[in-house]
Amino acid sequence: MEKAKDAAIVLSGGMDSVTLLHDKKDEIALAITFDYGSNHAQREIPMARINCEKLGIEHVVIPLGFMAKYFHSSLLEGADAIPEGEYDGENMASTVVPLRNGIMLTIAVGLAESRGLKRVMIANHAGDHAIYPDCRPEFIEAIDRVAQLGTYAGIHVEAPYTHLSKTDIARRGLAIGVDYSLTYSCYKGTEPPCGKCATCREREQALREAGA
Amino acid sequence: MEKAKDAAIVLSGGMDSVTLLHDKKDEIALAITFDYGSNHAQREIPMARINCEKLGIEHVVIPLGFMAKYFHSSLLEGADAIPEGEYDGENMASTVVPLRNGIMLTIAVGLAESRGLKRVMIANHAGDHAIYPDCRPEFIEAIDRVAQLGTYAGIHVEAPYTHLSKTDIARRGLAIGVDYSLTYSCYKGTEPPCGKCATCREREQALREAGA
Repeated sequence: MEKAKDAAIVLSGGMDSVTLLHDKKDEIALAITFDYGSNHAQREIPMARINCEKLGIEHVVIPLGFMAKYFHSSLLEGADAIPEGEYDGENMASTVVPLRNGIMLTIAVGLAESRGLKRVMIANHAGDHAIYPDCRPEFIEAIDRVAQLGTYAGIHVEAPYTHLSKTDIARRGLAIGVDYSLTYSCYKGTEPPCGKCATCREREQALREAGA
Repeated sequence: MEKAKDAAIVLSGGMDSVTLLHDKKDEIALAITFDYGSNHAQREIPMARINCEKLGIEHVVIPLGFMAKYFHSSLLEGADAIPEGEYDGENMASTVVPLRNGIMLTIAVGLAESRGLKRVMIANHAGDHAIYPDCRPEFIEAIDRVAQLGTYAGIHVEAPYTHLSKTDIARRGLAIGVDYSLTYSCYKGTEPPCGKCATCREREQALREAGA
């Protein structure tokens, strides 16, 4: 049976969400990118747009400028504030934007309800769980309950990659023909990517392990 | 024992949230008002500011202009779109902004985490439950779980008026000296208030029953 095209996706323009966009392209009616004023968002957002154009999927960008103004996170402060080195809890804790996934998902669910859609997808994965509390499976379950209770349509939040590693995602993407030159990951937001921040290292490792 | 001043509040400038602001003023460090571009918000926001100034509580306004652009709700469309008459489900359904409380609360929780606060308060009440799914006690429980799981501080969401009627809130406010001329409720956003929309009627009834 063909799946309905009744889903929205939270799409950053990084490799995880772009892979999910291609993976579920037949189910996705709307891609939503959030611009929270970070350096790297200015590089990621054009990648999000290009992939939506390739797939013929509607793309909206929601500005969340208040985050850079009021929230504390090195991710919102600029390249010099981003730590370099391995992707571990201590190193990356400063990059956490408080409850970012909660904020993005509630807005995406509200927008999905406005458009008559039934599901919202997000591409968090197993490698995110240790550092970001709002990427864990139990968080996704809780926000799914919020979405169901808070909407007339009983919208669901789905995280199809929650038990995959980033290498698994890269393997999946390569198998379905995702062009990773059309994604952006560096948290410093430089062009070319710095290659030193944890996000660059994690990306490079996943693509290498997946045989890219 | 004195309660800690460790809470943020979602403050519209209407009678419910202004009452809660005064009621819990010794616990509230930060009041957060959301500007989602509605007519009535432009009248409510100055009332929110005036009450915070009176109480010496920090006040921030978070712009959510994307709601008026992308979300469907008569509340975001202007005075002519607001229904007149009694406050019941059918009549008020068009004023629902999809998942509004979910969006406001996740942003407030993220901001609270950025500021080292431990709680976020919202003034939804029993009269809201029938119409607005994101005002019901089970919704507040679900978003509380999201806040606890999604933050390092394990922030809680509290809705102290969830089992009170609007008349109960008015009684409570009058008892503690709230000046209701410094609140605004009309969904049409006119000055003076229209007196005909359900929000005007509900306000007038609550104040009358409370003996104002």
